[in-house]
This record gives sequence, structure tokens and C-alpha cells, in this order.
Amino acid sequence: MGKVKCQISISADGYLAGPNQSEEHPLGEGGEALHEWAFRTRFFQEMHGREGGEGGVSDAVVREAAAGSGAVVMGRNMFGPVRGSWTEPLWDGWWGDDPPFRVPVFVLTHHEREPLTLGETTFHFVTDGIERAVELAREAAGDGHVSIGGGGEAIQETIRAGLLDEILVNQVPVILGGGTRLLDGIPPSVKLEQTRVVEAPGVAHLFYSLS
Amino acid sequence: MGKVKCQISISADGYLAGPNQSEEHPLGEGGEALHEWAFRTRFFQEMHGREGGEGGVSDAVVREAAAGSGAVVMGRNMFGPVRGSWTEPLWDGWWGDDPPFRVPVFVLTHHEREPLTLGETTFHFVTDGIERAVELAREAAGDGHVSIGGGGEAIQETIRAGLLDEILVNQVPVILGGGTRLLDGIPPSVKLEQTRVVEAPGVAHLFYSLS
Repeated sequence: MGKVKCQISISADGYLAGPNQSEEHPLGEGGEALHEWAFRTRFFQEMHGREGGEGGVSDAVVREAAAGSGAVVMGRNMFGPVRGSWTEPLWDGWWGDDPPFRVPVFVLTHHEREPLTLGETTFHFVTDGIERAVELAREAAGDGHVSIGGGGEAIQETIRAGLLDEILVNQVPVILGGGTRLLDGIPPSVKLEQTRVVEAPGVAHLFYSLS
Repeated sequence: MGKVKCQISISADGYLAGPNQSEEHPLGEGGEALHEWAFRTRFFQEMHGREGGEGGVSDAVVREAAAGSGAVVMGRNMFGPVRGSWTEPLWDGWWGDDPPFRVPVFVLTHHEREPLTLGETTFHFVTDGIERAVELAREAAGDGHVSIGGGGEAIQETIRAGLLDEILVNQVPVILGGGTRLLDGIPPSVKLEQTRVVEAPGVAHLFYSLS
């Protein structure tokens, strides 16, 4: 069965998104600074159908992390800013007509909705919780791994349910001063093993396995 | 003028000490786990006048970080568990008859006290705040650098006062679930530059300069 993996960028003070997330600031105030290193990679530009970007250490890290991903699970906040029931016009996600996932995406929500296909990506809406979402994602992923896309709550639920096998923390030298912390509410009984550390310009890639 | 440096071990969830610090648990509950990598180094054993310990990457890192330290500044909690006025019998610190510092140590406190010499270390008690403590430590350090020993509040005060030049964060793969966070209350206006990342067994050494 495929592994369940996550990669996430966090600030020096532990936040994966800045304060006051909104439609205007989907990553929270200042949160874009967490991803500048990733935006610079050739892989990121390719995923968004663009030319350019840089090769190098971080490009290799994100390329390797994404390789073999067969399905994605994400929280509803990562799908869009809408809260409560789905209302017309239906929100189609943050990513435009051709979302960069190109594998089945399972969105955690309390509100049922028909699947949505955009470009090569189909979003499925799961109302039965994280265990069911991961189960469906594993089936869809086949031999591939399942990627937990975020946000913080979805990652934390996956860890607390004992379902996350590996996490890649991209430690970024920026202070956000507030927002959503990656590991809030995770008990000390969760054991991490450091499996690899990679230095790259402006970011440290820290690999852990969980048990 | 010598630089002001700090090295500190933190958990994956950002804590430099566990919850419920006390005389029984000076590092907070579970906090010892943050320092197991350091206890294993030959340098740590030498500092405490003992044989043994391991060479290797972390040994070299802590040896290099300590080299040229001419004075130490620490918060009162790092000196001892006593709060309020000094009362008899006077607390002599956590470190026994021969504290491992062997340079002048400046202890931040609100309560005056005569200097205390133990072995090769003299503790000076500073009641005028962090700026004055760092000024005195710089004078005492001569060409050496000033080490901010901790705890969290002393480090945070030093950063907020714009006095910290470099920080070495030893990122340990353990979850504490509570305690004192390294960078709480530090505003985003504080800029970090990642200068070096070193992989070692069971710990990632992350070097930053501040401005």
C-alpha cells in the first residue's frame, strides 16, 4: 500500500500560513514569503505550464517529493475560502482552469458536493473524515503515494490519526509572528525520526518519518 | 566589538523547554530529550570534566560554537528556580561547584545580589535589563563573543533589542506538545539569513544571522 506523505514550508517560528487568511491572502499575511524558494524552482514553473525557473538543490528536492504521487488529500480551506454550505456560483478552487495536481484530489468538507473536473484534475468532496479521505486516496493512488496537501488542520488530523508516514519540512528563514502552526495539538507520543537534511539556498529541507 | 551569539536546541514543534519547568524538571517535562544529542558529544563531557563522549559532526559544531566565547548572559530561570528576592540559603545555580562556563556570567534579575564565584566561573547579577547585561558582557568578553545562554525570555529580549547577531538552532526530532517557544513575540521585522545547514545524527544544525 502506498505511503502517505506531506511536504510543507514553515517559518522559523513554526507557521505554515500567516495570520488573517482570506480570499485576498490565501496564505495569510506574509505567507507568500514561505514559498519564494519554491516559486523559483523549475519544477514549480513546469507544474504551472510555464517556462523558466531554476534547477539546483531545491528543484531536485521538490521534484523527488512529487514523483509517484497518485492522489492528494486537502482540507477545505486549501480548496477555497468558502465556509459553510456550497452556494452558487460554486467556488472552483484557487488554481484556475488547469490545477497543477493532475491526480485525483480528495477535499475534506462537511458539505456534500458532486465531483468537479478542471483540466486533468478531478476534485472529490469527502464528508466522512480524514480516515475515509485517506482510504479513498490510497485506492485512487494505486502504487503511488498519497500527498497530504494541507492546510494545517488536515495535516494535524492525518498525524493524530496515525496515518502520516513521512513529512518533508521546508524550514524557511522568515518570521511570520502569527498564523497557523504546523504541529499544534500533536502529542509527544508521536515519534519522529530525522531521515535526511538538505541545505539549499534560503531553505533547509528536513525529512522525517513518523511512527 | 565581539558578536552576540546564541545556540539553542528546539523541538519539532518549536519549544526550547517542556511544560511545567520546576526544580525537579529544570528543562520542563520531556525537555531532556532536546539535549540528548549534545550529551553524547565529547565536548559536553569535557566541559563537565568527564571522559568519553563521541566525536563527529555535532561534536565539531558545538566545539566551534563555543570557541571564543568570552562571556555569557542568562536569564534568572536558567540560573535557578528561585523567584522573587534572594533568600537564605542562597541558590548557587544548577551546575554544582565547578560550573562549565569558566567565563564571566551575567544573570538577568530584578533583585540585587553580590557576585558569586564557583570554580572558574563568576556570576554577576544585573538588575538594569538586557542592554546593560550585554554591554557588561561585551566589556568582559574583550575580543571574544558574548553567548546568550537562555532561557527563552532572555533570548527573545536580546532579539527584540536588536542585539543578537547570530543564532544556531539545533532542530531536534521530538515533539514536546507544550512549554516555552523560542520565537514567541518576535515581530516579522526581524530578518533572518540562513548561513549554513549541517546534518548530524538525530539533529539538524541550522545557522542564521539576524538583522
